[in-house]
This record gives sequence, structure tokens and C-alpha cells, in this order.
Amino acid sequence: MIREFLATRFRTEELCKPLAIEDYSVQPIVDVSPPKWHLAHSTWFFEAFVLQPFAADYKVYNEDFAYLFNSYYNNAGERVLRPNRGLMTRPTVEEVMHYREYVTTAVEKLLGQKPDKEILDVIELGINHEQQHQELLCYEIKYILGNQPGFHEYSTEMKLVAEDYEHTYLSVKEGVYEVGYEGNAFHYDNEIGRHKVYIHEFEISNKLVTNAEYIDFIENGGYQDFNLWHAEGWDMVQREQITAPLYWHKIKGKWHYYDFSGLRPVDPDLPVLHISYYEAFAYAEWKGMRLPTEFEWEVASYQFRWGQVWEWTASAYLPYPGFEKAPGALGEYNGKFMVSQHVLRGASLGTALGHSRNTYRNFFHPSSRWLFNGLRLAK
Amino acid sequence: MIREFLATRFRTEELCKPLAIEDYSVQPIVDVSPPKWHLAHSTWFFEAFVLQPFAADYKVYNEDFAYLFNSYYNNAGERVLRPNRGLMTRPTVEEVMHYREYVTTAVEKLLGQKPDKEILDVIELGINHEQQHQELLCYEIKYILGNQPGFHEYSTEMKLVAEDYEHTYLSVKEGVYEVGYEGNAFHYDNEIGRHKVYIHEFEISNKLVTNAEYIDFIENGGYQDFNLWHAEGWDMVQREQITAPLYWHKIKGKWHYYDFSGLRPVDPDLPVLHISYYEAFAYAEWKGMRLPTEFEWEVASYQFRWGQVWEWTASAYLPYPGFEKAPGALGEYNGKFMVSQHVLRGASLGTALGHSRNTYRNFFHPSSRWLFNGLRLAK
Amino acid sequence: MIREFLATRFRTEELCKPLAIEDYSVQPIVDVSPPKWHLAHSTWFFEAFVLQPFAADYKVYNEDFAYLFNSYYNNAGERVLRPNRGLMTRPTVEEVMHYREYVTTAVEKLLGQKPDKEILDVIELGINHEQQHQELLCYEIKYILGNQPGFHEYSTEMKLVAEDYEHTYLSVKEGVYEVGYEGNAFHYDNEIGRHKVYIHEFEISNKLVTNAEYIDFIENGGYQDFNLWHAEGWDMVQREQITAPLYWHKIKGKWHYYDFSGLRPVDPDLPVLHISYYEAFAYAEWKGMRLPTEFEWEVASYQFRWGQVWEWTASAYLPYPGFEKAPGALGEYNGKFMVSQHVLRGASLGTALGHSRNTYRNFFHPSSRWLFNGLRLAK
Amino acid sequence: MIREFLATRFRTEELCKPLAIEDYSVQPIVDVSPPKWHLAHSTWFFEAFVLQPFAADYKVYNEDFAYLFNSYYNNAGERVLRPNRGLMTRPTVEEVMHYREYVTTAVEKLLGQKPDKEILDVIELGINHEQQHQELLCYEIKYILGNQPGFHEYSTEMKLVAEDYEHTYLSVKEGVYEVGYEGNAFHYDNEIGRHKVYIHEFEISNKLVTNAEYIDFIENGGYQDFNLWHAEGWDMVQREQITAPLYWHKIKGKWHYYDFSGLRPVDPDLPVLHISYYEAFAYAEWKGMRLPTEFEWEVASYQFRWGQVWEWTASAYLPYPGFEKAPGALGEYNGKFMVSQHVLRGASLGTALGHSRNTYRNFFHPSSRWLFNGLRLAK
Repeated sequence: MIREFLATRFRTEELCKPLAIEDYSVQPIVDVSPPKWHLAHSTWFFEAFVLQPFAADYKVYNEDFAYLFNSYYNNAGERVLRPNRGLMTRPTVEEVMHYREYVTTAVEKLLGQKPDKEILDVIELGINHEQQHQELLCYEIKYILGNQPGFHEYSTEMKLVAEDYEHTYLSVKEGVYEVGYEGNAFHYDNEIGRHKVYIHEFEISNKLVTNAEYIDFIENGGYQDFNLWHAEGWDMVQREQITAPLYWHKIKGKWHYYDFSGLRPVDPDLPVLHISYYEAFAYAEWKGMRLPTEFEWEVASYQFRWGQVWEWTASAYLPYPGFEKAPGALGEYNGKFMVSQHVLRGASLGTALGHSRNTYRNFFHPSSRWLFNGLRLAK
Repeated sequence: MIREFLATRFRTEELCKPLAIEDYSVQPIVDVSPPKWHLAHSTWFFEAFVLQPFAADYKVYNEDFAYLFNSYYNNAGERVLRPNRGLMTRPTVEEVMHYREYVTTAVEKLLGQKPDKEILDVIELGINHEQQHQELLCYEIKYILGNQPGFHEYSTEMKLVAEDYEHTYLSVKEGVYEVGYEGNAFHYDNEIGRHKVYIHEFEISNKLVTNAEYIDFIENGGYQDFNLWHAEGWDMVQREQITAPLYWHKIKGKWHYYDFSGLRPVDPDLPVLHISYYEAFAYAEWKGMRLPTEFEWEVASYQFRWGQVWEWTASAYLPYPGFEKAPGALGEYNGKFMVSQHVLRGASLGTALGHSRNTYRNFFHPSSRWLFNGLRLAK
Repeated sequence: MIREFLATRFRTEELCKPLAIEDYSVQPIVDVSPPKWHLAHSTWFFEAFVLQPFAADYKVYNEDFAYLFNSYYNNAGERVLRPNRGLMTRPTVEEVMHYREYVTTAVEKLLGQKPDKEILDVIELGINHEQQHQELLCYEIKYILGNQPGFHEYSTEMKLVAEDYEHTYLSVKEGVYEVGYEGNAFHYDNEIGRHKVYIHEFEISNKLVTNAEYIDFIENGGYQDFNLWHAEGWDMVQREQITAPLYWHKIKGKWHYYDFSGLRPVDPDLPVLHISYYEAFAYAEWKGMRLPTEFEWEVASYQFRWGQVWEWTASAYLPYPGFEKAPGALGEYNGKFMVSQHVLRGASLGTALGHSRNTYRNFFHPSSRWLFNGLRLAK
Repeated sequence: MIREFLATRFRTEELCKPLAIEDYSVQPIVDVSPPKWHLAHSTWFFEAFVLQPFAADYKVYNEDFAYLFNSYYNNAGERVLRPNRGLMTRPTVEEVMHYREYVTTAVEKLLGQKPDKEILDVIELGINHEQQHQELLCYEIKYILGNQPGFHEYSTEMKLVAEDYEHTYLSVKEGVYEVGYEGNAFHYDNEIGRHKVYIHEFEISNKLVTNAEYIDFIENGGYQDFNLWHAEGWDMVQREQITAPLYWHKIKGKWHYYDFSGLRPVDPDLPVLHISYYEAFAYAEWKGMRLPTEFEWEVASYQFRWGQVWEWTASAYLPYPGFEKAPGALGEYNGKFMVSQHVLRGASLGTALGHSRNTYRNFFHPSSRWLFNGLRLAK
């Protein structure tokens, strides 16, 4: 596990390498935390839940940091209010990097002492936790750079690939199926336990919806026809004057978007990205189809390729039968968000290798557009 | 159907009888429309969807009313913005009553001409629609009078009764069950069609949670323990400083509430009323139990009495397999709200006789507290 | 004084006569209080400041009314928050009328007992106070009816007349002048004492700006040229998309406005009404002139006719040299508003006969448009 | 003028020296712009108003910067909305410094070419403009660092000194006085021309109000007694729960404040700082005195020392007789703010040497507390 731990710590820092110091501290919208905050928070997580309880003579790096870098764990005490994360110019990036190094070394040392399973479990959770923040980092770096008037390049490597195989609909027969996680590898509390669901016959696309298909929807008035939308979605597109996915700009009659390499023409063959659940739903309505439920997706997932973009499902994020949250702060990880969110399945190009699986339940508010989310149709 | 139609029209007016003219026009919060608006809107519904399309030489009462009294039917044109309903002092109550009489007479005449099934169906929808607005009227009259410093009496008859039989938990076996409406009586598009679901073994209380039990939760710090709450619910109780159900006031150390007869001590034996989904959930957490899903409720509903209060379920409001909305304005009735809402099952003392059934799916935002909602536990 | 008192009480009620009961309770914007509130508040003023302190065995009509109908007198205790005045459907209009009668009778009785000067002074203040609320009533009735889709008639008599004499500019010589109230008649604390000011030579128009002149400004892009506006005014017209005075509507290319008799074409010869200070200022800029200061206005006021509309001056509302407010609640009448307001001079068709004089200082926030305000140019 | 120009440019950069890169980009409240923005904006001012119109073959550094760094000059085109200044992480501080150097060199070159008076005048305005932004920088650096949980040191040198001479009240006789700027040195359009005012006899303190005196006001309930406050001020202290000047914290019963050297006990002998106009007014009310008008201050200013803190006056910010704004963008400098602001006279320790004079009219909204403002009493 030492290797996995160090690789995860290293990747977080690698993701931030292309940034200017100025990019680290900004919080352009409440949902988008500063990269510096992620660097520190994922470190505080190890300090608070691994080192303080389990490392014999560990000395806290800075007593104030718990206040500064706790996210939402009420059990772990008071904290800076979320909208104020972008106001913390201090500690500086340099000091946060020292903090990371200090904690990384301490955890490494603890791991070298062959700790027992309880400790290993929390470290594994910390690794998975940091991988989730890596994904958020990707979203938020994109948001920060994609909203600068200069559309600065971040990376030319992080990009989607076209699904260039034949399009078809895969069938699943009606009946009782089992869903949910079962096994001994790492998993979250929200995806256990394995349980039965009744599924009606359905078909599901073997490919994601592409930009070309989505442009069709736009050009044919999809954003203007209220009959396609949820009331709540219609309110949002009206209020925020949304007429295309996030990061899209129409320049001289042609759609462009910001991807990590700068502002460029929309590639028609790539999967569409950065749409809210409302937009995904409206698109499906327009096609006379629908989104799959999370169980349909899971059951069918052996039949198609997935992993480039998170896929909105028709399912609200609710507990599985028998769900029980862990006691204390770690119990706040998932359970308390089980209302007003929708489930996404799959993984994205921001997801750490090996982090996701076909029972993994990602969840966001239906209005969320800054993550790497797209859609797959069912009928 | 003439009798049912006239009875419904009459009951709406009866519900308003105890009001002063001044009470008819006020909109204390956006969610609570003025009684006058309900009187007119339920009338406009018949005019727009029954008389204008189907009554040969019907003359519209007042061309402006469509603009004034359309609620949310985009297909039916522009309308007064919801937050402005309380600003319409004109037409007066008297004129709205004339409007009602005019339309009632015209529909009665149409019904006397033995119209075909298409027309009868829309009239039946109109009746059910008006019954739903009767229920809203009950909620809103309570909100209007319950927020006057004088706590004025509305009625001494509209009250809950205690469930004074023995408390027990009823068992339901694991397996595949059928849920959803099937039959020829009136029903909404959101409750068809009959379909299979897989249900795990569970137990459900034969009684609703009472005020005495809920006071226990309050007095034992339920509103102060964040571990019991959804993040969103915790935000709401903090922000709005909620420490008890709506209409509750602690006076000299003793809980009182406004019911329709005035301000009086809380009756410990009655079912608790006026709590949000978040509060229902937190209460269940505190008891180490949970809310039933809407399917568990439906399957078990033959085993317990229901109908005094709407019961929050653990289910988000989502379409049934194969759901299709009607074309045109009437298709906006249910489908477009299928996101961010939770399902309530049962009926309440504000529900018109015969309006509900055990497949009926009521739905509200999890934060809603002004309806007649309570809870029943499952485990 | 009995006659003056009774006449004032009577006129308030006369002003409300044309209203429907529904019109009495509504508060369309925070600034516009319900007519019922004015009826009760001007009554409470006599009860709280005259009857309770001075009428031997006066019995308070209803102990709750102090809470309901105090406006802003912190010294007189807690009160309903201003934005909630429109939510009070009770007491009804009928009961408020009883309250008026009860208090009117009691004050009449007290006046019959030949009270001493201290009491007479407060009653005279109460009369003037009620006259001010009569003027607010006029504004607010216009706002309530003028924002109903039906543009209902209130009165055909309350209307401006054209100033149909020759237009000229009157000169005032540079020098030291005396301004401020001096004498023994009723006056407010903000207009005493008589004091010297130095005034530079100026000219002032003998006529108010007319609708025709103002339409010129509109049609020549006055609302689009930021160079004419205060930063704060420009923000307001942008944010609220203001392109004409309040109550103006362009219908088929022609300007109309709501006056008390309904919606009708703008009369070009009448003084322009319902413009904010920002608009008055921008208009003056556009003409290459300016507004007079309140002292210029006062010094010149003997030379022109005034009294149809309140005239914005260039002066901020500040205390006169030696200003001292009265002790207790009545000291809150004027002094605490002496920041962020601009002075208006004159009177309007809503002003009670004899209520104003040329030393009278009216004041409102620069953004106010619902009063009867216009402008006169100086240079 | 080259020397003055270079010294000003140099001082701006010196003021920023103690900052970490992270401190440059943040905008904690709308009023407080990022230091980086000031560095760039004061540079753009020279580029837009000096180099582009007057330097023969000047090449604009970056066409985008006009959009990024224009403050409020509508005549100079579109710009980043003020609340978004803190979101611009790019250009980086380093690039902004290059921009400064590039423009400094170009202006220096232009100055070397013996430009005519028109050009020199604009450069002098640019110097004064940059000096004003230096002062804002001081305020805003204090705000940024003083709101970090760490209360970081900025400088140990920038501090007030006690006025340790005897306290007395200076008398001014009633009569006609001349006020306003007259002369050939640099001055703003808002302080010309010299004109007569009539002043009544008054006395003015020879010293500023001290922290000790202000603590007296606090400890004697000054913030709790509504009779001392403007209605608007009372609303503000209630809403924002203000109980002391900005940056003050009560720690273990003792008042501390953040000054540029960190968090330290309040020094009782220093002038009080960081109070709004409302607080200054309430303090004066409590003492039974008042603030001087700006003309009283100016006339008396030869009799007392001033220059450590800006002093609130009782005067609203209004144009002098005959005020005319310059044509084009530079005309937006002062005139468009002449509403809803109050005048401050004097200078502060953030003011550049020689920047102020006793006719200088500084102005801010009455609620402003983050500037270096205090008060002097009159009676």
C-alpha cells in the first residue's frame, strides 16, 4: 500500500504543476474550491483520521489547519465557511507543500511499521478520498482556466477519444437482478450490499451521445421548447440563459469550447460533456428516449465500454436496503447527501486509475455542469 | 357526474366561507397562493380545458383572466408571475364568485348535453384538479390565519383524531410485488401502470408518529445533533432556526400550536403534523429506524389505517416504467416535476372524500412544512 | 382645532372610499404600505401620543394594535416588520374603521375639555402627521391600482393642470439670504431656525418641466447616454430597465400613462411626474442646466407658482445649524433620516390644503419614483 | 515631473513588496479590489489616457488589458465586472510587473521629449490617480491580511502617532468665508472654484477622537441606544452585528485590533480608526456635539494639525457652484459620484506625500469602514 499511497500523493501534485501560483487560491463559484485547498484538505484528512488517532508521537503540523481545511465533517469541529475558501491567501502554496511533505512522510513511516487492518482501512479510505479530490481538481482547474479571458492551456494530453465503432442498442431481459458491491476490495458504504431489484425489459445504447448529436438538439430548438424540460430545469436555463453546454462559445456562427489545451472548435465525434441532468433529460425527451436507471446501467454495463465521462442516470441518490453509515466523522462521507442528488455511473478522464468500478455511485445535484458528465440513452 | 361536479364546486366555496374578504388576497410566502387565486384558477381550468375547446357557443368571461389565473401551464400562454399573485387586488372576491357561477353554469349545461367520453374525462380531471386545490386551500388558509398575531379561529371541526389502538409493527415478506394503478376509475398519469418491484423483508408501524413521541425527539436534542440530519436539512434548520414543527410555539415552557380553532396546547396523542422530509428523516434516524419507500407503503397499506395525514416516504418522485405524459398543456400536470421532490402517500383531513387511493402519489419538495404531513416508521 | 382635527380624519376616510376591500391590505413593494395600515397607524399615533399620556381615563382600544401599527418609533416599542405589513389580513377594514371612530371620539372629547398648550401641540402634530399619511395614501393607492392589469379608475378629479403661461427664467442676485421657518404656526423641527446662507447669482425657471419636454429627452436617447447620469442612477436604470417615468407604457408607438382615471395618452402640456432624483438630474444635464438647491428654491419661491408636484432639489437632506431633535419618540420624526436622502420642495395634488409652505422640507431617497415628484430647472 | 512620476510608480511597487503572490489576487468583498488589479489599473490609466493618444509610435502592451483593467470609465469601453476582479488569476503578478515596466519606460520616454502642457496635465492626473490607488492599496492590504485567521504582519512602520498635546476647542466667528481651491498646482475638478459660504459661529476640537474616548462610548452602550443613530445606521449595526470599529476583537475582556504589525491591544491614546459615518455621527450625538461641515473644517483647518486620518464631515458630497466636469472619460472621475456619499477632509497615513491639501474633498459612502477614517468634533 505504500506504493499506492505515494503514487496518489504524487499524482495530486503533478495535476497542479502547470498552474501559476495565482491559480491556486481562487474560488470562482462556491462549488469550485481553490486547488490549494484540495492540496491541504486531502492532507488534513490523513492527519485527522490516520496520524492523530494512530501515529504514536505524531506532532500536528499546525493546530490552525483543522479549522482551515476541514470540508464538511461536523464531527471534526468548526471550520472556515465554504464560500470563504477563496479568501485564504495564507498559508501560501509553498507552505501547503511543506505540510503535504510532512504528512506524507509521517504516513509513510506509519505504513512502514506494519499497522493493523483498522489503520490500513483508514489509509485506504484516505487514498480513495484523495483520488476523489484529484477528480474535483481536474474539474476546478478547468473551471478556473476556462473562465479566464485568455483561455490558457493546461495540458494537451488530457482529452477524450471518439467511440469510433458501430452504434447499436443492447437488450436486457425483464427479471430479478442483483446489484451492489460484493467483495473484499475497497468500496464505499453507499454501494453495499448486494441486493435484488426487479428490472423491466429495456435497451441501452452502446455509445455515449456525441457533440454532433447534441448540436442537433441545440440547432433544432431544444433549449427553447419547454415541453422537453423539467420545471426546475426550465427555470434554470431561463434564469442563467443557458443555450449550450458549459465552456461552449459560438464564435462567428461556429461552436467552440474550452478544453484543457485552449479554445478550439467543438469536435463533433467526441462525447458531449458538461451538461446538467436537466439537459441530459431534455435531450433524451427530444430523442423520444430516456436515461437508464442506475440499476439498468449496472446490469448492462458488462456489454458496453465506459469510463470516459460520468453518465447521468434517471435515479435519485438514495440508500440501498440496509444501508448503515459508519459511526463518527467518516459516517458523514456519503449518507448525509442522500437527498436532492442524482446518481452518475461510470468514470471520467479525471478519475484516478482503478478508482471506479461498475457498482460505484457518484452523485451530484441535477444542476451540476462543471464535472465531466455526459449521457447514454436507453429506451 | 353532474352531482360530483357541483359538489366539488360547492365544497371549494364552503371552505372559504369563514374567511374575511381581506384573507382572500394575501400571499404570505411564494408557496402560499391567495385563496381568491385558487377560486379563480380552478375555474379557469374548466374554462380553458373544457368550455373553450368543447362548449359550442361559450363566451369567455373575461379575456384577461387566462393571464391572471393560469398557474404553470406554459402551453396555455403567458401568466402573472407566481410571486405576484398576492398583488392582484382585482378582480375582487365578489367578481371571482360571479366568474365561478358563470363557469359552473356553463359546465353544468355542457354536462346536461350528454357529452362524449373525451369531454367527460377532462371534466373529471377538472374535478380532481379542483379537489387538489381544495387541499392546498386548507394548507394556505391555515398558513394565513396561523401567521396573524391574533391566531384567529377558522373551524372547530377540522381536526385529527388519535389512533387509540395498540401499537405494533406489521411484517411484509421479501419478494416480487406489483404496484401502481390498474383499473378504470379516475387516476393520474404518474400512478400507472401496474408493474413489478422487488421488495426486501421489512416491518412497518401500524400507527403514525405522535406529538408525544416527537416532543421526545425535540426534548432530547434532535434538532441539535447534526449526525441525524441530511446536510441539506441541517443547513435549513440552522438557517431558519427551526426547533419544532411549523405552527408550534413554546409558551411558558409548554408546547402550543395553532390548529384551525386557535392557539392551544399540543395534544400528545395526535399524529405529528407539519414537518419537512428532513425532520421526518432525522426523527427516524434518532429512533434507529427509517421511512418506508413508496412501494413498501403501497404493499403494506392494506394492513393499516391511513388517511389523516400525508406520510413522507423514502422515495424520490420519479417516473414509473413506461411513463408517458399526455400531449399539450395537460401533460405538464405531473411529469415536469419529477426531479428534486419526495413522494408522500396516504391522504389528509384536507383531502376531498374519495380523492385519494393507495396508489396515489403526492409529491413535494423535501423542505415543505405547510402541508398536512407526518410520518410512519419502518425498519 | 376640533374642526381641523375632524376634517383631517374625515379626509383620510374619503380618500379610501373608492377602494375595494381587497385594495386595503396589499403591500406591492416594501415602500408602499397597505391603505388599511395608514388608517390604523394615523389613529394609533393619536392613541399613543395624545390619549394614553393625556386623556384621564382613556381605555386602550386593543393592546395588540401598538405592535401592529407602530411605524418606526423605536421609543414606542416592538412592532411588525415593515415588509410584513401586507400580510396582516386582520384586523379587518371594518374593525380598523371602528378603531378610528373610537379614537376620533376620544380626541374630540379631550379637545372639548380645553386642554393646555402641550396637548394641543401634540394634537396639531398628529393632524399634520395624518396629513402626511394622506399624501402617502395617494401615492400608494396609485401604485396599487396602477399595477393591476386592469388599470382601474380611482377618481376623475384628482389631476394636474397645465401651466399655460409664458416660460421665462427668473433671476436672483448673489448675496446673503435668510432661509428656514420663523413664526408661530405649525412647522417641523427640520425647518427651523431662520439662518443665513450665501447664494451665488442664478436663474430659475418659472415653470415645471413638462411631459412634452421629457419625451424629448427620452426620444433623444437620454436613458441610453451614461454621461448624463450619476453612477448610482445609471446602475438603477440598467438594472431595472427603466426607460420612462413610472406608470408610463408605450402602446403602439405612443406614450400612455396610468393616472387616477385609468390608462390614457400622456398629456404633453402637464408637468412630468414620477421620476427619481437620478432622472431629474440626468434631464437637467441633458439640457445643460441643473436643479436648484433647496435654498435657491426657497429664496426664489416668491417669484413663481408652486404646489402641483414636489420638486427635486440639488440638496441632500441635512440638519440646519443648531438643529435639535425633540426628546423621546417624537424626536424620531425627522432627524434620524438625515443621511442618504434628497430634499424636495413645494407640495403636490396629494398634499392636504394648508399642509405645506415654502420652508417645508420634504425628503426621499434619490431612487424614489412613486411619489408625485417632478422638476424645475435652474442655471 | 519625471522624478515625481518615477517616485510614484516606485512607491506603488514598494507598498506591495511584503505581500505573498497569493495575496495579490484576492477580492474579499466587492469594495476591496485585488492588489494586482491596482498595479495593472494604474498602469492602464497611463496607457489609455497618455500613451495611446499622445505617444507617436506606442504599441499597446496587450489589447485585452483595457477590458481587464478599466475600472469604471464607460467612455473607455466594456470591462470586467467589478465583483469579478478577484477571479482573474491571469495575467500573473509577474506579467503585470512587466506591463508596469513597459508602460513606465514609455511614459518616461515621452516625458523626455518635453511634451506640451496638455500631455503634462494628463500625466500629472495619472500620478495623482496612482497616488489615490496607493491609498486604496493600503486599505485593501489591511483588509486582506486583517481577515486571514493568522493576522499576518505587513509592516511595523506604518502607524499612527498619539496627539500628545493639550485638548481645546478652537473658535471660528460667524460670517462669509471663501472656500475651494484656487491656484495653479494640481487639483481635482471637484474642489474648484473658490466661492463664498456663510458660516455660523462654531467651535472645533484641536484633536481627533481617541480610542480611549471611543471605548467609553462602546462601554456605555453607544451601539445599543437607537436614539443616537440614523435609521440607516441603526439598520446596519443591527444587521451586521457591529459593536466596535472594524478590525477590533474583544479577547478575554480586552479590546484588540489588527494593525499592520499584527493583532495587538488597542492603544488608548491613538486616534480611533475604521468607523463608518453612522458611527462617527452616533459618537458625536452621544457627546452632545456634532461633526463639522466640510466648510467649517476647511475654514478652521489652519488652526489644528491634520493628516493622520481622514475625517468624516457632516457634508454630503455635492457639486460646488459652477461645477463642470471634463468632457470624455476623465469627466467620469468625480462628478458621477455626487450623490449618496459623504465628504471626508484631511489625509491619512496611507496618503502619498503632498497628495492632499485642505481643499481636497475625499468622499465615501456613509457605511464605509475599511478606509483610514476617524473623526473630530465640533459644537
